[in-house]
Amino acid sequence: MAVCMSAAYCVPAKAGTQDWTPAFAGVQLTFMKTLLMLSAASVLTAAAPPAKPKTPSEIVAEAPASAWRDIKADDLVVMDLRNGARVVIQLAPDFAPVHSANIRALAKGGWWSGSTIYRVQDNYVVQWGNNESTKPLPAGVVAKPPAEYHRSLKGLAVRPLGFADDYAPSAGFAGGWPIGYDSKAGTANLTHCYGYVGVGRDLSPDTGTGGELYAVIGHAPRHLDRNLAVVGRVIDGIDRLSSLPRGTEALGFYKDESMHVPISSVRLASEIPAAERPAYQYMDTGSATFAAYLKGRANRKDDFFIRPAGGVDLCNAAVPVRKKPA
Amino acid sequence: MAVCMSAAYCVPAKAGTQDWTPAFAGVQLTFMKTLLMLSAASVLTAAAPPAKPKTPSEIVAEAPASAWRDIKADDLVVMDLRNGARVVIQLAPDFAPVHSANIRALAKGGWWSGSTIYRVQDNYVVQWGNNESTKPLPAGVVAKPPAEYHRSLKGLAVRPLGFADDYAPSAGFAGGWPIGYDSKAGTANLTHCYGYVGVGRDLSPDTGTGGELYAVIGHAPRHLDRNLAVVGRVIDGIDRLSSLPRGTEALGFYKDESMHVPISSVRLASEIPAAERPAYQYMDTGSATFAAYLKGRANRKDDFFIRPAGGVDLCNAAVPVRKKPA
Repeated sequence: MAVCMSAAYCVPAKAGTQDWTPAFAGVQLTFMKTLLMLSAASVLTAAAPPAKPKTPSEIVAEAPASAWRDIKADDLVVMDLRNGARVVIQLAPDFAPVHSANIRALAKGGWWSGSTIYRVQDNYVVQWGNNESTKPLPAGVVAKPPAEYHRSLKGLAVRPLGFADDYAPSAGFAGGWPIGYDSKAGTANLTHCYGYVGVGRDLSPDTGTGGELYAVIGHAPRHLDRNLAVVGRVIDGIDRLSSLPRGTEALGFYKDESMHVPISSVRLASEIPAAERPAYQYMDTGSATFAAYLKGRANRKDDFFIRPAGGVDLCNAAVPVRKKPA
Repeated sequence: MAVCMSAAYCVPAKAGTQDWTPAFAGVQLTFMKTLLMLSAASVLTAAAPPAKPKTPSEIVAEAPASAWRDIKADDLVVMDLRNGARVVIQLAPDFAPVHSANIRALAKGGWWSGSTIYRVQDNYVVQWGNNESTKPLPAGVVAKPPAEYHRSLKGLAVRPLGFADDYAPSAGFAGGWPIGYDSKAGTANLTHCYGYVGVGRDLSPDTGTGGELYAVIGHAPRHLDRNLAVVGRVIDGIDRLSSLPRGTEALGFYKDESMHVPISSVRLASEIPAAERPAYQYMDTGSATFAAYLKGRANRKDDFFIRPAGGVDLCNAAVPVRKKPA
């Protein structure tokens, strides 16, 4: 008999970026108490059970400060929507330097003022921005950026995923990012996982300036890897994008402008006064804590699970991100 | 210069269940025309280019009638929400016969009347139903179903995916469903892909009756495979679930009942008068058309793509489903 409506546990918790919240820890505690009550009789009459392996959520919650890395204020793009929602994006200048610089210049130039979210396609992408072919670009924006679809593997400290990938010879993590990589070719690329942000473009060789962006809101469309420039990821507020009404036109475009979601401002965190500036950290993917987290994601062994998978795919092992503790 | 806002093509179309719509075909046509206009000069002076390989969407749109299979009216669960949205679920009795029979009995008994959607967790699941431990079950509902987490491989005509899977020794398709399978153990299981529906449960050995259900609305949480009973998939209206506001409490539960989304009725299509009865078809995964579609999903070669992936993961090759043509 499922008691989900009261005990909140019919489908287990998802580990990852959302599970480090105090609220979640509270539920876990309540649940443990319920469990203890349920099994009180047997506990009292039997020997203490062996220590349980930690869940991925517990590993993240208990991670030492040394496992976290600050995200630079210049790498944080803060997008405020007129409906009050805030979406925060972490740029990936180590993978897409020209596009990242473009996005910084577009933000500083106030270029997105008056722009909107105009496309929401279910299980695919949310897209926003201005038409860069008609609205003049601020000074410093490279109009025709190079194809930053992959970079050299050199200089990256790679932690292999340890499991197969269908979109690259190998998959793993480097510098806090999920990557596909090819040791023979010596290349690495960012991947289209949930919440990841890419640059809209026209047909090749156009790569887009960064003036039109999309975020993934469904099962990872990894076939887009190495075909568009991935420039970062939504680290806060993806739920405010993924819960928008779907566009009814082909490809999820909104039927008319009355449905568009207006963007109030897009700023770098570094432009925001220090007292109000949001700050975040990502987990160092080279840390022992991340290794334990990854192992935990592939081998769920808490009370709910009967059969650990023994494997995990790249986008199902999201790199933990949190608000920087005060 | 991205011209997405006018030509709707900054991020390419996603092939799958949504791309067979006439609207989509229309856009493709417009786009082809734009392309033709753009390259008119060169076309006029050069030899005709070799025929392009068909896109997955084109393969689905042009599939012969023989590639489609009717879904039985007794396998269609029609859930109408009070906000006017309709969600249609296809049951998978070949994989979860007892749970499917339970869901039919619960629908016929009107058991979900007055129930609600009470949990929406971003990039994870939407969950609805009644508390089966407190509301008496209709006659015919098995209170403690067996663990229908996998079945025998015997009797299934399997089309291998042809690419690696991180959650099962092999992945493929059988009878219109994506499966993980183990040739040595002789078992096969349904998978937690986007839109797939599972049965909420308490701790093992409880399996849930089917009175509380969830649908996947994010990146496939395949680690749940073989740990819960997958009973089917949403074949129409998943966007009405995935766009609901996320719950703000732990695990995505709504904070209070005022946020719950009331369910007006849950009926089998077979209970609906024939004139109003919805009817759907799925693509025969044993057909040559599906083989071509699968190959196309792994090797995107239209004008937008520069580098076909050469592979595809199981949940990124959704089995096409359509409304039955009149």
